[in-house]
Amino acid sequence: MATTAPVLPAFEIDEARLSRELAELATMTSVEPSAVGTAVTRVVFTSDDHTARAWLKGLADEEGFSVRADAVGNTFFRWEGADPKLAAIASGSHVDAIPHAGMYDGTVGVLGGLEAMRALKAAGLKPLRSIELVLLTSEEPTRFGIGCLGSRLIAGVLDAARADSLPDLMPKAEVGATLATVRAEAGFCGPLESCRLEAGHYAGWVELHIEQGPLLEREGMPLGIVTSIAAPAGYRFTIEGVGGHAGALLMPDRRDALCAASEVILSIERHTLAANAASGTNDTVATVGTCDVHPGAVNSVPSRVTLQLDIRDTDPERRESVMQSVRADIDGISERRAVTIKEEFVNADAPATSGAGIVQAIEEACAAEKIVAKKMVSRAYHDSSFMARIAPVAMIFIPSRNGVSHRPDEYSSPESIALGTRILALTLAKLASA
Amino acid sequence: MATTAPVLPAFEIDEARLSRELAELATMTSVEPSAVGTAVTRVVFTSDDHTARAWLKGLADEEGFSVRADAVGNTFFRWEGADPKLAAIASGSHVDAIPHAGMYDGTVGVLGGLEAMRALKAAGLKPLRSIELVLLTSEEPTRFGIGCLGSRLIAGVLDAARADSLPDLMPKAEVGATLATVRAEAGFCGPLESCRLEAGHYAGWVELHIEQGPLLEREGMPLGIVTSIAAPAGYRFTIEGVGGHAGALLMPDRRDALCAASEVILSIERHTLAANAASGTNDTVATVGTCDVHPGAVNSVPSRVTLQLDIRDTDPERRESVMQSVRADIDGISERRAVTIKEEFVNADAPATSGAGIVQAIEEACAAEKIVAKKMVSRAYHDSSFMARIAPVAMIFIPSRNGVSHRPDEYSSPESIALGTRILALTLAKLASA
Repeated sequence: MATTAPVLPAFEIDEARLSRELAELATMTSVEPSAVGTAVTRVVFTSDDHTARAWLKGLADEEGFSVRADAVGNTFFRWEGADPKLAAIASGSHVDAIPHAGMYDGTVGVLGGLEAMRALKAAGLKPLRSIELVLLTSEEPTRFGIGCLGSRLIAGVLDAARADSLPDLMPKAEVGATLATVRAEAGFCGPLESCRLEAGHYAGWVELHIEQGPLLEREGMPLGIVTSIAAPAGYRFTIEGVGGHAGALLMPDRRDALCAASEVILSIERHTLAANAASGTNDTVATVGTCDVHPGAVNSVPSRVTLQLDIRDTDPERRESVMQSVRADIDGISERRAVTIKEEFVNADAPATSGAGIVQAIEEACAAEKIVAKKMVSRAYHDSSFMARIAPVAMIFIPSRNGVSHRPDEYSSPESIALGTRILALTLAKLASA
Repeated sequence: MATTAPVLPAFEIDEARLSRELAELATMTSVEPSAVGTAVTRVVFTSDDHTARAWLKGLADEEGFSVRADAVGNTFFRWEGADPKLAAIASGSHVDAIPHAGMYDGTVGVLGGLEAMRALKAAGLKPLRSIELVLLTSEEPTRFGIGCLGSRLIAGVLDAARADSLPDLMPKAEVGATLATVRAEAGFCGPLESCRLEAGHYAGWVELHIEQGPLLEREGMPLGIVTSIAAPAGYRFTIEGVGGHAGALLMPDRRDALCAASEVILSIERHTLAANAASGTNDTVATVGTCDVHPGAVNSVPSRVTLQLDIRDTDPERRESVMQSVRADIDGISERRAVTIKEEFVNADAPATSGAGIVQAIEEACAAEKIVAKKMVSRAYHDSSFMARIAPVAMIFIPSRNGVSHRPDEYSSPESIALGTRILALTLAKLASA
């Protein structure tokens, strides 16, 4: 690696500043008490999200990075390189957080990316290529029902008209609100088609993220390098039965949507466990995360239930095979209970494979720091899954304590975060130098 | 019945006015579209409820009835009798409606009671006893989790301190809001103990109500006379599992609260069906009407689920036996899934038996009108269940089309409602005459 040494001055990651900024970002949340850890809820385009965006822009302004936002609110903080016409190197992640989540998911990649750029700049690096930090909109599906909204639009894998018509799922949403109305109100205008970036727009993409799983901690590895990202799919099931008075509607006359939904939930679990047993792996995971009951009164028989299913696998065919088994059960449940069960497809994405050149750059950075990182599959999916459509990508994973995420007790140590940030900085510097 | 003839002048129920007023009351609702029927949502102490209360007070004022409200908002419209010191005869019901319900439940008893009093007054009746119309607060459990709030407090079967501490369950409730704060804000002050009325306060209570079940229509009967009211019970189950990321938390490590809840829901249904099979009746009914999932995000494993159960039976021992079977299943589910399942008792009430004298008075009124009414059990429970603690009671049931209630397509014909109101008027006149 002697050839890169001249372009990379010594630099320092400011671990204390990074921890302080992560803590400050965690205060931009709907207040929720939590017995353990730090509970964060920061749904896209809420006032908390706007506060976080404005604060990040302020930090970037201090460094003199230019700022551009696109029609869906993806925000690009750019450190101009010696040759601005060359495709830039980019890093980024998200700051939105699902209800009652933790303070590290996404935020580590945004603030770590910013810290990496600041550290390199402070050390006097003059990169050949520009380096961009990208704040991606709505990686979490909480508000619009589909994850990685911003990066899907960048990659052109989500139809702009369909995206604009996605209903606002917030409990207090106005009737008829959609992404189109919500983003306009948030100040992000223009056609969503304009979010798209052409393949080759970036010369490389590196995302720093917490693992959200137990493997690095369990194996005592300091960092991970993601070589592929599992294939997620999302479905929505609407079960329509017949409502009525909880006292007067007798059992033989019932077509209870919640009883039917319970059978669907257990069918999904059963076939997922069967798929794992058959493959001898734990690669298939399925989750029904929401269950909305209509009318939702203690003394009224549920007439309609909506379930949202998240199912992931490293093998999309196995994932589809689980869905086929569930569908067969659903046919039986519908008929036996005289209810209708409608399946809506939300998304089904292909696995993403990391770019060999980016993985190699991370490995070289690790080697320079004398650490060995674990090459691994990401079972959570990330904006990198979609950035992979327009650029070679890879991810750097930081160990998660007890493997937990999307919970207030989600935790990664300041040392691990600083180490990941250092490796990110080395990687960005390397990639931007040629 | 020749002896009563002199005190009861000929009178007319104004069917058109009654229909018009029912339709007007149905407009006092959160606007909700419905493909069929008229959707009404009127939760206690919302602006819709306040509008309805003020409107009813206006109608009573026009007739010169005096008005008194107690500390929980039960409101008493009084037509003074010739001897005001005698215990009054009362009729009444409720105007609150669960989310997305219909326009007849409760309202028929309130507006029918008012119409009966107006018709008798217009015909020149001078009742010996005073006649009161009582608007009871929160017959529906939507907001405070317990039904018949007002009549429970009148009957003294709900501890005042416990009642005041009932949490406000509205989705947009302020943190820490309880019945105490909500009723104060609604303008109903003073200690809840003051709501209590002594046994004997009323000489009789007659409630006009829609059947909410299919029997009258099925058997072609014009009206029903309720001789007993089934015993309802309410429980809340809180299932605590472990949350986590829907991608990264692998299946063997899961303790999914929603999967456990699904098993609980199906256990309740199974044991209820078994109880009916064993008894050869359909007298046991059980409903899980709500299922609240925490954190409730599509990509987060449910860590906590709360279920509300409503279970009713004409035989409280059989009801308890179903609960015991469910509890045995719950022990197994908790252990197998490593989740905790907490059962909270909400209420368990005894069946109520109608007063022979009141039933006889209704039967005589029917005989005078040359109709035969069906003596029947009410499987829905009503404020009359609690008024029975302080007075002899009975109910007059009006046929429900298709037996449906708590739905927008709930319907009873104007003719049936007018007939029930006429029988109510005859009964009140008879009871108030001696």
